[in-house]
Amino acid sequence: MAGFFLEDLSVGQSAELTRTVTDADLVAFAAVTGDDNPVHLDEAYAAGTVFGGRIAHGMLSAGYISAVIGTRLPGTGTVYVSQMLRFRRPVRIGDAVTTTATISGIDLERARVGLSAVCAVDGKVVLEGEAVVIAPRRPAA
Amino acid sequence: MAGFFLEDLSVGQSAELTRTVTDADLVAFAAVTGDDNPVHLDEAYAAGTVFGGRIAHGMLSAGYISAVIGTRLPGTGTVYVSQMLRFRRPVRIGDAVTTTATISGIDLERARVGLSAVCAVDGKVVLEGEAVVIAPRRPAA
Repeated sequence: MAGFFLEDLSVGQSAELTRTVTDADLVAFAAVTGDDNPVHLDEAYAAGTVFGGRIAHGMLSAGYISAVIGTRLPGTGTVYVSQMLRFRRPVRIGDAVTTTATISGIDLERARVGLSAVCAVDGKVVLEGEAVVIAPRRPAA
Repeated sequence: MAGFFLEDLSVGQSAELTRTVTDADLVAFAAVTGDDNPVHLDEAYAAGTVFGGRIAHGMLSAGYISAVIGTRLPGTGTVYVSQMLRFRRPVRIGDAVTTTATISGIDLERARVGLSAVCAVDGKVVLEGEAVVIAPRRPAA
């Protein structure tokens, strides 16, 4: 249980998480989702693509956004409504991906919270997009 | 290597994939992304939420969309540009999620392809949204 109640959130508040992508992460992500596109798994194939080598599944970085939102800001009890994702650059094995979510709007009546999310590697944006979530209300005393 | 070149795609063309969510999938997805929100992992906690039990990470279903696009339509060689996701209903362990992607638009000059994607369980939409991808061109003969 970690995070904030709706009433304790403010616009501009942010949280982040850094994860380093491993070979095992790509193998596991492929197994769980069924996305066994060889650009993620097969170095010989990937070396011949525009990427020049294996890249992570874009949805792995999207999972990092979900992790920040679901475990830190707002955190436990948050329900996802929508997420826009714009994939900007590839992520490679060994990259440390820092994911930052920042509150961009709060609708207290509907308990809806907007967040802008950015995943970056060495300061360069690899994925960005906006989320809308329902944040948990503080229980009545 | 599976899928289609840009020149072979047509509006209305679709592909699908069905995956049944397991407990192990949620554990692995949490480990890979860092999203260890207890609503996905802790039955005792989840039973007390509005969902009444553990639910899958929304981004797991998003991964199924990526799988259809990256392995079937357009398939190998496809590059993700953007993905909108609207989470409609929870997905539970044991649910068979059928993900369908349908081509909604093709820009031959820019090699951009739009797809509408729907994840459904027992015919009910759990996740939907639009993707934009770059499809691989047929190599010159």
